[in-house]
Amino acid sequence: MSYNLLKGKKGIIFGALDERSIAWRTALRCHEEGAEIVLSNAPVAMRMGEINKLAAIVNAPVIACDVSSNEDVSNLISKTMEHFGGGVDFILHSIGMSINVRKGKHYTEIDYGFNAKSLDISAMSLHRVLATAMKMDAINEWGSVVALSYIAAQRVFPDYNEMADAKALLESVSRSFGYHYAVKKHVRVNTISQSPVRTTAGSGVKGFDGFMDYAEKMSPLGNASSDDCANYCVMMFSDLTRMVTMQNLFHDGGFSFTGVTEAVINATAPSAP
Amino acid sequence: MSYNLLKGKKGIIFGALDERSIAWRTALRCHEEGAEIVLSNAPVAMRMGEINKLAAIVNAPVIACDVSSNEDVSNLISKTMEHFGGGVDFILHSIGMSINVRKGKHYTEIDYGFNAKSLDISAMSLHRVLATAMKMDAINEWGSVVALSYIAAQRVFPDYNEMADAKALLESVSRSFGYHYAVKKHVRVNTISQSPVRTTAGSGVKGFDGFMDYAEKMSPLGNASSDDCANYCVMMFSDLTRMVTMQNLFHDGGFSFTGVTEAVINATAPSAP
Amino acid sequence: MSYNLLKGKKGIIFGALDERSIAWRTALRCHEEGAEIVLSNAPVAMRMGEINKLAAIVNAPVIACDVSSNEDVSNLISKTMEHFGGGVDFILHSIGMSINVRKGKHYTEIDYGFNAKSLDISAMSLHRVLATAMKMDAINEWGSVVALSYIAAQRVFPDYNEMADAKALLESVSRSFGYHYAVKKHVRVNTISQSPVRTTAGSGVKGFDGFMDYAEKMSPLGNASSDDCANYCVMMFSDLTRMVTMQNLFHDGGFSFTGVTEAVINATAPSAP
Amino acid sequence: MSYNLLKGKKGIIFGALDERSIAWRTALRCHEEGAEIVLSNAPVAMRMGEINKLAAIVNAPVIACDVSSNEDVSNLISKTMEHFGGGVDFILHSIGMSINVRKGKHYTEIDYGFNAKSLDISAMSLHRVLATAMKMDAINEWGSVVALSYIAAQRVFPDYNEMADAKALLESVSRSFGYHYAVKKHVRVNTISQSPVRTTAGSGVKGFDGFMDYAEKMSPLGNASSDDCANYCVMMFSDLTRMVTMQNLFHDGGFSFTGVTEAVINATAPSAP
Repeated sequence: MSYNLLKGKKGIIFGALDERSIAWRTALRCHEEGAEIVLSNAPVAMRMGEINKLAAIVNAPVIACDVSSNEDVSNLISKTMEHFGGGVDFILHSIGMSINVRKGKHYTEIDYGFNAKSLDISAMSLHRVLATAMKMDAINEWGSVVALSYIAAQRVFPDYNEMADAKALLESVSRSFGYHYAVKKHVRVNTISQSPVRTTAGSGVKGFDGFMDYAEKMSPLGNASSDDCANYCVMMFSDLTRMVTMQNLFHDGGFSFTGVTEAVINATAPSAP
Repeated sequence: MSYNLLKGKKGIIFGALDERSIAWRTALRCHEEGAEIVLSNAPVAMRMGEINKLAAIVNAPVIACDVSSNEDVSNLISKTMEHFGGGVDFILHSIGMSINVRKGKHYTEIDYGFNAKSLDISAMSLHRVLATAMKMDAINEWGSVVALSYIAAQRVFPDYNEMADAKALLESVSRSFGYHYAVKKHVRVNTISQSPVRTTAGSGVKGFDGFMDYAEKMSPLGNASSDDCANYCVMMFSDLTRMVTMQNLFHDGGFSFTGVTEAVINATAPSAP
Repeated sequence: MSYNLLKGKKGIIFGALDERSIAWRTALRCHEEGAEIVLSNAPVAMRMGEINKLAAIVNAPVIACDVSSNEDVSNLISKTMEHFGGGVDFILHSIGMSINVRKGKHYTEIDYGFNAKSLDISAMSLHRVLATAMKMDAINEWGSVVALSYIAAQRVFPDYNEMADAKALLESVSRSFGYHYAVKKHVRVNTISQSPVRTTAGSGVKGFDGFMDYAEKMSPLGNASSDDCANYCVMMFSDLTRMVTMQNLFHDGGFSFTGVTEAVINATAPSAP
Repeated sequence: MSYNLLKGKKGIIFGALDERSIAWRTALRCHEEGAEIVLSNAPVAMRMGEINKLAAIVNAPVIACDVSSNEDVSNLISKTMEHFGGGVDFILHSIGMSINVRKGKHYTEIDYGFNAKSLDISAMSLHRVLATAMKMDAINEWGSVVALSYIAAQRVFPDYNEMADAKALLESVSRSFGYHYAVKKHVRVNTISQSPVRTTAGSGVKGFDGFMDYAEKMSPLGNASSDDCANYCVMMFSDLTRMVTMQNLFHDGGFSFTGVTEAVINATAPSAP
């Protein structure tokens, strides 16, 4: 399927770890829709992942970048501009990391050093990318930036731990920077609040399977998949959504505005004798 | 328990059907806190209910009022002003009615004539009360009006049926009229979005018991009771909350900002073999 | 510009009055994107408008329909199915009307008979269309319904009058029905909360020009135009947004999440001596 | 004025710099309402401020605490428990600091080292206080914690700079920890989103005066003062609000749900010739 929605557009996609990643699926769809891409990921993730396989398919250079380093981000942006001979039209930020989660720390007992890293990598990295891009004038007029978020930024999902706070921060950075980039250069910045997806990253969260089932039962259309999300990203990068900015867009089969479903009521009801 | 929070204040309380009603509990608490009260209910509800018992306890006149009738509302307001020798300081609107629900009509098959009645009685009645009060200058400076709502105005609870739409309309009327009454006379208007309560009215909703259990499991503090709600109303009628207006205040033990709890995850998880 | 995003899709577009209408622009864009269309409007609006001009361009039949009449809606749906030889894939609901606004009634003094008509035509009409379509099985699997709304459903814009309440009701109906249609047939229902547009309808609102200027100053990207909105509708009707339902999508150049701009601060600041 | 709402209750109040501080006014009101208090502030703020004057009036010990230090927080909590001979019933967190703002850095050019400090002191400090209190079992059953926030957490106010992101993070921490503390010990945690106030801290924000005027014009009841906020805090610390948790409560004269006012429209309208 291709509509040529991104024909002539150039973009950076962060966070394609393996073929289950939303970023991976999005890179494929952007390529199908006619975009040229630069792929980026953390040096450590690149060693674990199979990003070169993707790079070959979508014909994209891979540039390692630790998004917590100003120098790395600067280097990525400048190499990207060199590669494209100019600025980009879109950026996908699909980045999140929590050492506290990995180490199984309960939310009420997190380590604050690890937490600072989680906030920096999962949220402030969006600021760093945007600030660097703005300074180097790396995003073209009416460019579109999307960061992936999760509804834990609005409501508590206990096992999501400190990543909830990181996503709330990410969404705020998206709004705040979105304001300034809109005023300066009509660049729009939005977050997509996506259904849970069984990615390699997602699986790290405790109780993930139980949670996937619950989300499926609570979503009138069911959970949105990585491929669905890739389509939504394409749409947000296209010229059909130019006036949408500073929004958090729920892409979740209706989960966010469903209070309860019959399936969940039935499951939670005390059984009849 | 009494703090004299409402000493010298006068108010109208709509909707006390029987002792399980939130309005009934609120009338008792307002009386304890030193307020003088006028009770009102629909003529038909008065025949079913035991409002005279309450009237005796809180030493209040009872004035019948069909809130869908301009004349009845006018009559209530003017009799109340006569009784108090002046305006009131607070009003509780605890009114809701749906013939479609009573008749067991599915939301997708409601009768539009009945629906118009539901919207008029459950939501536009707040407008009628406020408009009549404004015209007759019946609410004192910094007066406080509270209408009871439910989170179905924000998220779908399928069995709540058309009452969800009625509550969304009610909350909008509260905001819209709240703006004008604030500008004109510093009167504040808010809705309280309350946990489900096993009132006589609530019990009419299909699947109510299963729903109460679910809400209890999804609320970190448990469901808020009628007595809790009465306390919150007292607080909103007091002088300690003068700058709060046009808000929808969730009073629900944390339900509204909880995405899931362990209790619910466990209940919905497919059982192990 | 055409991406063939709607190739093979069929839809109904309500509310194209004249070439400034959002519905008009959307019909043009849907046609360009390959869709087949049925146009509908109120009998009275059809006499005032120039819908036949549009019908000629997009090669669509025009079917009059008073959306407050069950019979008319039924007739429209059945004629549409006859015309297409089957169901539709999308519907645009761009319908609103307030006699109280037309007559210049202040919000605090509206007539309740007129108000009931406003709510019925501007909001419950969406329910009527969806209920009729569901009964006649007139929307195909994964169909998409969009209704146009306005941010007055969330925050008070005094001159918007009772239409604010009507839009809040409309958004609630969209969520409520969206739940049931998703469960039944994967049909998604959303509202788009659009920037103010100088349409023939919009101009009826008192103080509209001052308001347009304010919205422009408060939107980091400026106000979204009718043509922008048409693009966003195309996107919502396409297969790229299948998992989005029960949402209210702000399409407003960032207005909704902007608290203040420098332009507005400067304008409201007391002038220096 | 005293209702004895906090008779027998004990609490910690952070952030009373001088008599214009919200925390200062809240300490006075809590004392009037019968509470016993411990005052705390950062060592550097204590040198600048006049906290000892307040301590004398409300008869409270002052314990210095750098909220970014685990040790300091631990020491504060343990000394407080020693002083009271047991746990506390309420805590006010009125803490915020941004070196980037102080140094006049534009939001798009902030220093990330300073930013990390802003987030730690302004937001994660709430986590540190709650985690330490939980570990030491320092908050009594049904205790109440309030942190002061600002609407920039939801919408962009450009001059509020990175503090917007800090407040969004603070509100998320409040929800996340609120969930766990409710489940564990019925402790409720909320934020109050307060009108701008001309405190010594607030005045540091660029363009603050213009902004105060704008907020006043956009609030149907006008801006809420420090004393109003103190009253609202008292109410949230009292037993009348036991079932309210994980909420962000707007205390702003209606600002948050007002889209525009006539005063603002008039000010922004292009002048007639």
